[in-house]
This record gives sequence, C-alpha cells and structure tokens, in this order.
Amino acid sequence: MGDGEAPRRLTVSDLGEKRIIREIVKPLNPDADSLVGIGDDAAVVKFPTGSDLVISCDKIPEDLLAIQFGLMDAHHHGRYLAMVNLSDIAAMGAKPLGLLLTLALPADFDLDYLREFVAGFHAGGAEWDARVVGGDTGWGSVLCLSATAFGTIEGEPLRRSGARAGDELFVTGPVGGFGTALAYFGVARPRGLLLGAADEAWLLDRLIRPQARVAIGLELKRLGVCTSCIDITDGFGQSLREIADASCVGLEVRWSDLPLHRTTLEVAAFLERPPQDLVFGIGLDLELVGTLRDRSIVADAGLFVIGRAIEEEGVVYEKDGRRTAVTTPGWQHFRLPALELLRRMYASEEASDAPSSSPN
Amino acid sequence: MGDGEAPRRLTVSDLGEKRIIREIVKPLNPDADSLVGIGDDAAVVKFPTGSDLVISCDKIPEDLLAIQFGLMDAHHHGRYLAMVNLSDIAAMGAKPLGLLLTLALPADFDLDYLREFVAGFHAGGAEWDARVVGGDTGWGSVLCLSATAFGTIEGEPLRRSGARAGDELFVTGPVGGFGTALAYFGVARPRGLLLGAADEAWLLDRLIRPQARVAIGLELKRLGVCTSCIDITDGFGQSLREIADASCVGLEVRWSDLPLHRTTLEVAAFLERPPQDLVFGIGLDLELVGTLRDRSIVADAGLFVIGRAIEEEGVVYEKDGRRTAVTTPGWQHFRLPALELLRRMYASEEASDAPSSSPN
Repeated sequence: MGDGEAPRRLTVSDLGEKRIIREIVKPLNPDADSLVGIGDDAAVVKFPTGSDLVISCDKIPEDLLAIQFGLMDAHHHGRYLAMVNLSDIAAMGAKPLGLLLTLALPADFDLDYLREFVAGFHAGGAEWDARVVGGDTGWGSVLCLSATAFGTIEGEPLRRSGARAGDELFVTGPVGGFGTALAYFGVARPRGLLLGAADEAWLLDRLIRPQARVAIGLELKRLGVCTSCIDITDGFGQSLREIADASCVGLEVRWSDLPLHRTTLEVAAFLERPPQDLVFGIGLDLELVGTLRDRSIVADAGLFVIGRAIEEEGVVYEKDGRRTAVTTPGWQHFRLPALELLRRMYASEEASDAPSSSPN
Repeated sequence: MGDGEAPRRLTVSDLGEKRIIREIVKPLNPDADSLVGIGDDAAVVKFPTGSDLVISCDKIPEDLLAIQFGLMDAHHHGRYLAMVNLSDIAAMGAKPLGLLLTLALPADFDLDYLREFVAGFHAGGAEWDARVVGGDTGWGSVLCLSATAFGTIEGEPLRRSGARAGDELFVTGPVGGFGTALAYFGVARPRGLLLGAADEAWLLDRLIRPQARVAIGLELKRLGVCTSCIDITDGFGQSLREIADASCVGLEVRWSDLPLHRTTLEVAAFLERPPQDLVFGIGLDLELVGTLRDRSIVADAGLFVIGRAIEEEGVVYEKDGRRTAVTTPGWQHFRLPALELLRRMYASEEASDAPSSSPN
C-alpha cells in the first residue's frame, strides 16, 4: 500500500493442496455429531432409517457468461455451483443432505477468490441445510468446478417419465428470466438498451443468484399428484422435450398462461426477436416444470398451470390460436464457446442473414 | 480404408452431450430394481436400513504419467478413476454401493476413447459391485476427470485419528511399487535399465491396474481392532504423516519388515538413490496402512506388521539400528507438472547437484 508496487496476490501454489484443505475448506465445516468432518478418506453421514439415497453431480462451465460479463463475484460463483447441484435433488422431490466439492485449479489461481468461492459454496448449501462433507482439490491447467449433491427420500421420487396425456403442465415460477438476462447483459445492453434499475436488478438476480426450488419440490412429492418433474438448467424448451421424450407424450404450452417477466418482452422487442426465443431457449431458471394428474392442488402449492400433456408427440406452444413446434435449442455443449453462441443467436439481421449455415 | 485418406475419427462434438449420455453412458447401466437409472435429474439408490452413508470424490490429474509414458489405454484410464475413488470407501471399512462420473471434455475429444474410458470406469466399479448411477458430461477446454464414490457402513468407520502409542503399524501389501514403476518407466528405463519381462509386468500392473483394497477394509472393520486406517494415494510417507498428525502420535517403521518388491531395490540401485526415496515418496499403491490394538488377527487378515505407534511425534524408520525421519514429500500439487517433478526427483547427480534449491 503506497509503496509504489502492488503487493503480489497469493495464489493456490503458495499454499498447496494440504494447506488449502486445512485452512480454507475445513474451517467452514466444524465437526458435528452427524458427520465425520472433512479430512478423512471419505465423509460418513448419518442416514435416516427408511430413506433412500438421491445423488447427482454437476459441473459448471469454465466460461460462465455471468463471469465473462463481470457480473458475478467469487461468493456468488461458489453459491451458483451449490444451487445447480441442489436443484437436481429438488427436481426429484428429495430433501438435500450434503454436498461435495471438486476443484481443479491452475497454480496461479487467486487464493482470496478461492476463499470466497468456497464460502459461497457453503452458504448455498446452508440455504437448504446441505452440509459440505467432502471434496477434492488438485491442480488443473484450467479451472474445472464440479460438485456432488445428495439427499434423502422416502417412497417414490418425482421422475421425468410419468406424464400421461390429459395431465396438466405446470411450472413453479417465471420462465425465460435467465435467457433474458443473458440476452440483455450480453447483447442488448452493449447495443444501447438501458432498462430501469429495478428491472436490471431483477435480471441480475436471475443470472447470479438462481434459487433451487427445494421447498416446492418437497411439497410436490408430498402431495402425490405430480406425474413428472424436471428442473430448468439447459433451457425451458429443452426441459419440456426431456419430459415429453421420457414420458412418450406430447406437451402443449399455452403462451398466454406463461408467467413471463416484462423485461423478456422488452429485450426481445429491442433485439427484434420473438420473445419465444428468450423463453424456450438457453437458460438456467432452476424452476421446476412437470405434470399433474390433479390440478386442484395448484393454488395452494403456488404453481402456474401453463398447458397440458397430449397424445401427439413433440412440444408445441399455442399462441393467438396457432400451434407452433418448440424447436429452440438449449445449450449445445461441444459446439461453440458460450459467448460466441450467444452473440450468434442474437446477431443483428444485417450481420447474419443466414446464421445457421456455417456453425463452424 | 485404402482410399488414401484416413477416415476422420469421430469426436465428442460430433455427438453432443445428450447423445453421449444416451448412446455411451446409459447403455452400460440398464435399469435395475434398486436404482433409478441414468437419465433423471438424480439417481435414487435403495439404502439399507441401519446403514450410514460413506461418500467421497476424487479427480485424477490431467497429466497422468502412465498416459504420458504411453502405457495406459482408455479402458485402464477409466478403471483407474473408479479404483482411486473406491479406495477411499475401502479405507473407511465401508461397502461400496455406487459411482458417479463427471467429465469435462474438449470438443475434439476422441469418441472411441471416451467409449472405452466409460466402459473401463463401469468395469472398475463392477469389480466391487459399485454401480455407475449418474454423472455429468460437458465441455471443457482441457480434459477434467473426476468421480464420486459412495457406500454404506454400519457402526463406526475406520478413521485416521485413533492410533495410540503402542499400537502395531500395518500395511496390506507391498509399498513403493507405484513409485518404483514411475521411476523405472519414467527415468531408469530411458537411461538404459532393462528389467526382465515378469518384473516389467509387475511394475506395469502397479501403474495401470491399481486395486482398491475393499475386501480387506471390510475385514478390518469387522474385526474391530483397527485403530486407524488410510489408503496410499499420494505416497506412503505422506499417508504415515496423515495418520500421525490426525492421531497425535508418532509412527516408527521397521525397514526390515516392509514388504518390498525386488524391483524397488534394483531400480533404486540403478538410479543411485536410497530405496527409501521410492518407498516413502510419491505413489498410489492403494494399499491400506494403519494401526491395530491387537496383533493376534494379523495372520488371518493377511496384514504385514511393519512397526508401531510411539509417543514421540513424527514419522521415522529404523534401519540397521539407526532411526531416520521420513521426510520424502508426496505429490506436491500446484508446484510442477508431474513429469517435470519426476525428472527432477531422479535427476542424475551431475545434472542437479542441488535439485531443491530452485524449484521454480
């Protein structure tokens, strides 16, 4: 400070793996009666009698757009990884129990960032009583962030495959908010659209503070009328197709019944795109979507009924009396870097009259 | 074939994430009564009443030396990831139940390699009745391979922290084999040492076919006399230090009682190094090491008693009447690439008289 030269920031190679675990990861998780704490070969977790184990793992992309946009700090980055993993447990109607964290870090990875990232991961877990019980930290030439979430369930889980023609289609909250936020911060705002502060804050929340729908997942499981369920992590259209495929039914969405935020329409209009692109396309809203065989529970559970399951296969939306197939792709991993994909999706007309003709 | 141009090999970007899961990962794991198969948001695993959950995750380095040496194929690569993870479950004295696989793959990653890797991972799990119940596959700018293993236990697990002065120190099999194999294939063989075929085969096995010691872990747990236990994944010396630290005791190894393979002495002699460097240094033998409060079980359980826990802190070995501290480092993640580290460790005398003076 004031000595002319900025102090060198510490990196993970200054500490090494053992000290990272001892000084950064372990202090956040003091031993509790129910757990063997971090530091043994594996964690041991008391398991309630009569429960089954629900378990899932998810990595998050190294090129997360919210970070490229400079919008997400280390704490929210860590929380995000926890939430994406807890969301899979929520979608099964299960109760989260714990998390494990797997990190591959370049040697020059900033130590303060790591500290806040790990704290954010713990905080995300704590929002749903999921303890961080273990993990692995090692070297990688680039950052690789993944986690495992596990929980408990008694009886049948919510699955993707039980929808029947005639079931009501529900979603637990607004759809397209994440996709709208990407399009706004990544494309529309740089091109001159400036939304009001409240709208910007709402969109920023979608992007950096997604919330796993654990409570409503548990409620759906308890009510026993949910015939299929999935969380939205790759895009709403993609989630609908997953349910339709797994259940061997079609799904019909009533556009007018979708809970949309006003910014979705505003950003779509600015980009001269149909709002459907933002709603059905890429996005990680973490809302649950699925089907019900009895809609009488809807009001109590806080669900939005947005359509129904039909005999005819495929996913369609009905708008102004016309039915159109939902074909908007979700994330196409392995195809293009995320930012490049986003820019091509919302390329201005003059720049890309035929955007799909040469994807490489 | 024969058309002059070799057919282009398919990569993961040709298939995409959804098809990789559907066509490569899922077919290896048909649904069973006890499981929700791969393809839902999370796996559901029947959990035996009265059991607790044991869970751990491990990534393997992207620069695995056996692959750099051209010794490990895709199948063994996948099996290796499974074994390293199952070994953590074994070290707790727990019964493996399942595995999850997390892959970050560059877009040009070879599809045949992936297919064999995944098959090897499944095969490794199957050796100990651990089913692959889930995973996540996505894009990464470099390969990042990690997994989660989980299992069940009833009653107290084996831990690192229960050793008391006076306890006998045991190991479940030869130590230093992995370190010897690295030194042989990485340094000694390129410099001209050529072992016989049987010895080479033994060393190759250490490197590419390590075996998690699940059965003996379960037996140690059943016998109820094991006061501490850990698996050897970073090096034998490192594992001893972990037990000593966690238990607040010292450990004394009797060199003459160590189960060593003849190649360890031969390779050490060729490199003009004390064999201790190969035995206590880096290595992933996956043998279990720990302490017993009653050595009468030793013969039945197939253990080697190699020393004892002592009051005085630290880890020492006794050889020819002299006691020497074990200071050989295990893997130093974040410091140097593995191959570079290995070469510096066994640098010939003339090339590096003071090998530790400038690690960077």
